[in-house]
Amino acid sequence: MSVFPPSLENLIDKFASLPGIGTKTAQRLAFYVLSLPDEDAKAFADAIVEAKGKMHFCHICQNLTDGEVCAVCANPRRDESIICVVTDPKDVIAIERTHEFDGRYHVLHGVISPMNHIGPDDIKIKELVDRIASGGVEEVIMATNPDTEGETTAKYISSLIRPFGVKVTRLAYGIPVGGNLEFADDATLLRALEGRMEI
Amino acid sequence: MSVFPPSLENLIDKFASLPGIGTKTAQRLAFYVLSLPDEDAKAFADAIVEAKGKMHFCHICQNLTDGEVCAVCANPRRDESIICVVTDPKDVIAIERTHEFDGRYHVLHGVISPMNHIGPDDIKIKELVDRIASGGVEEVIMATNPDTEGETTAKYISSLIRPFGVKVTRLAYGIPVGGNLEFADDATLLRALEGRMEI
Repeated sequence: MSVFPPSLENLIDKFASLPGIGTKTAQRLAFYVLSLPDEDAKAFADAIVEAKGKMHFCHICQNLTDGEVCAVCANPRRDESIICVVTDPKDVIAIERTHEFDGRYHVLHGVISPMNHIGPDDIKIKELVDRIASGGVEEVIMATNPDTEGETTAKYISSLIRPFGVKVTRLAYGIPVGGNLEFADDATLLRALEGRMEI
Repeated sequence: MSVFPPSLENLIDKFASLPGIGTKTAQRLAFYVLSLPDEDAKAFADAIVEAKGKMHFCHICQNLTDGEVCAVCANPRRDESIICVVTDPKDVIAIERTHEFDGRYHVLHGVISPMNHIGPDDIKIKELVDRIASGGVEEVIMATNPDTEGETTAKYISSLIRPFGVKVTRLAYGIPVGGNLEFADDATLLRALEGRMEI
């Protein structure tokens, strides 16, 4: 017994499918989009298609980029001997905000999670091991989230890369255990980065 | 010093331009869209373009529709002699949820608001007066929001249509004064509808 015409209902459904957006908010957003001038609504749709079309994984660090390699990997002043391993592109942004880390990144795009049927081959671990195997890396900082899955992933990866004679560290527990890296404030993240310890 | 590639930054900006969506949420939504399969992201963009392209105002009641006239106006069992005047298409949904009103609607698409330079000619008042002038209407229920602008708009409209010999009522103050029609619960709205009084 929908009261909305199908095309509006469809747009509301699309908004409601986004994380953290409920039906009421989805209705609000859909009506807002309908109230926009035609060109602005078109620009919104184009932004989705363009971002989706242009963005891909940096072939070095697996971060999202629209260039050949990402901005960090393309920057010759970034230290190639330190790799900070994160779960998600948003975590790169969080660490970049501290302005303290001048090494490179490696984005896993997930964590090992048997509950969700995500194994080591489903995230970018092989790409990390290949990077380390090709040499020049002295330290790998594990910056996965400090929860069970993040810890497990960090331990698994450190067991794979320690044979290469690489120092493996993890962020200090400045980050609240069970928390989420993305929402840590800059000061906490900075302290976590400074106090990193060898695994 | 944006850390995002331009096409991603653009998508984040688009989400952040939506009402009630802050930068952090916009980033979350943008990353979520990028994580969707290509066809789902495309479907999202298409939904915007399609809804925007298909939706227009019902030429009778000015509600949003994708047909010739809206579902309410197209329904011969709805009483043509009662028109409920609302600010916004979302208010039609709210009143429809009571399942008590079997008349027609008229959507103003705004309220008279000198502060925001919105005068009587900027909202669909003329269309309402034309409907009433063409005859057959016995009662007009003013269901604008119970705030200053809504009250002013209701009073202005009632002064225009009372000369046609039409009974003009407004929703009872079951709705909290200063509140917003869209967020009223069904029971409150129902009581407001039952207790409507002549202006």
